[in-house]
Amino acid sequence: MYGLHPVEEALRSGSGRVDRISIARERSDRKLEQIAAMARENRIRVSLEPRDQLTRIAKTDMHQGVVAFLRERQFLTVEDLLERKKGERRFFLALDGLEDPHNLGALIRTADGAGVDGIILPERRSAPISATVAKTSAGASEHVRIARVTNLVRSLELMKKANIWIVGLDERGTPDYTDFDFATTDCCLVLGREGAGLHDLVKKTCDHLLRIPMAGQVSSLNVSVAGAVVMYEAMRQRQGGRNGGSTVQQTAAAPKAAKKPKGLGSL
Amino acid sequence: MYGLHPVEEALRSGSGRVDRISIARERSDRKLEQIAAMARENRIRVSLEPRDQLTRIAKTDMHQGVVAFLRERQFLTVEDLLERKKGERRFFLALDGLEDPHNLGALIRTADGAGVDGIILPERRSAPISATVAKTSAGASEHVRIARVTNLVRSLELMKKANIWIVGLDERGTPDYTDFDFATTDCCLVLGREGAGLHDLVKKTCDHLLRIPMAGQVSSLNVSVAGAVVMYEAMRQRQGGRNGGSTVQQTAAAPKAAKKPKGLGSL
Repeated sequence: MYGLHPVEEALRSGSGRVDRISIARERSDRKLEQIAAMARENRIRVSLEPRDQLTRIAKTDMHQGVVAFLRERQFLTVEDLLERKKGERRFFLALDGLEDPHNLGALIRTADGAGVDGIILPERRSAPISATVAKTSAGASEHVRIARVTNLVRSLELMKKANIWIVGLDERGTPDYTDFDFATTDCCLVLGREGAGLHDLVKKTCDHLLRIPMAGQVSSLNVSVAGAVVMYEAMRQRQGGRNGGSTVQQTAAAPKAAKKPKGLGSL
Repeated sequence: MYGLHPVEEALRSGSGRVDRISIARERSDRKLEQIAAMARENRIRVSLEPRDQLTRIAKTDMHQGVVAFLRERQFLTVEDLLERKKGERRFFLALDGLEDPHNLGALIRTADGAGVDGIILPERRSAPISATVAKTSAGASEHVRIARVTNLVRSLELMKKANIWIVGLDERGTPDYTDFDFATTDCCLVLGREGAGLHDLVKKTCDHLLRIPMAGQVSSLNVSVAGAVVMYEAMRQRQGGRNGGSTVQQTAAAPKAAKKPKGLGSL
């Protein structure tokens, strides 16, 4: 893992996965010093290395002067995900064959933002949680709960038995995602492959196939964008379904008090 | 521009910007033949070239056997954008210093999907509409209306005079984006730079700064994801603000009739 922000997030998450970090000998700035201090506080070894050496390790020069070495990740099981119940209504994300690390990273970042309870990834035909994924996720891949499963369909069936609705996104689905009731149901959103969509068996396992309306000429959204639109619609519905009726324009002088969002899983 | 899908979209858009196309001599599949036929119908010259030659032209081997040569793009002005009124309520997107071509492409694709009326890009410190942008936008960059401006703040002031609300996205903004009334106002959503956000002057020009709630540990979403969440919330509000109260689960046997979405600009 490399880059100022991802390494900082990894240290901050307290996951204990950071084994040691290397910092570029040539660089000296406050941010790097902070990271080194944070690592030392957590009794993580810090070494200084030539910049070129970091570039060789990270296989890119985008490391911003810091590389973290991680212990192998311990993935959860679907049972682990189901066991913990942090709020009244649960929301999971399952990714069916997502192979692009940038899309995977963006989805993990958004899942963290929307407060999902966990992500299910199949072992095969899915991008691994690589350094690119960690960086694209802005470090969220270190603290979002992720289960890695051998058989996605079987895992979804398990969730069904736990009274969780399986909802897939599909270009030909009905109804629109905004017509689905996320507020009063536990559910797992399933996203398909870039381009090809959900595998047939996965599609058959879904209780509902939702669609995102497309007003223009392009037939679908990027998968990480589509997932974000639905995750945040679920969050909106769970937070009381406000829909702008308060006409902020006319009341701009007295905006509502800022409130800590609760996220999908906490309602 | 390269790739099967983007080139096909460019030909289909009828923009007249495709000057000629080159197809890999070694490849023969139906999709490529369709593209060649479509080009010939539009009296666009088609040449066969060695695959390596296409790779040299496209500067990547991701061209899928087809490269299109485009005439220089004619950008619109803000006045052009304001002149055309296709629906009752208008929605524009302005990008303040977006330098990543993948984010730009994804935003253009989503803007097409959500039916925005036009996009404003500053001439400087913004990614150009390159082949990468065209490909990431799934071809939408060819038919979405785009204005290129020398001074973003001045353009936003022009929009204000046309009674369009300028709303920026900002981590420290209030209120939440879901509390803003998109249904009954014309507006222009302004997105800032990856990481650094909106420039100070642009921020000051905004009538409102909205925020997207973040439930987890990461402090912000990817800019293309954030833009999508807000564009689709605006679309949802404009289409009547359904919020899942219809409890699709209990009425799954009789889903609502599919309807052609109207998009942001058509209501």
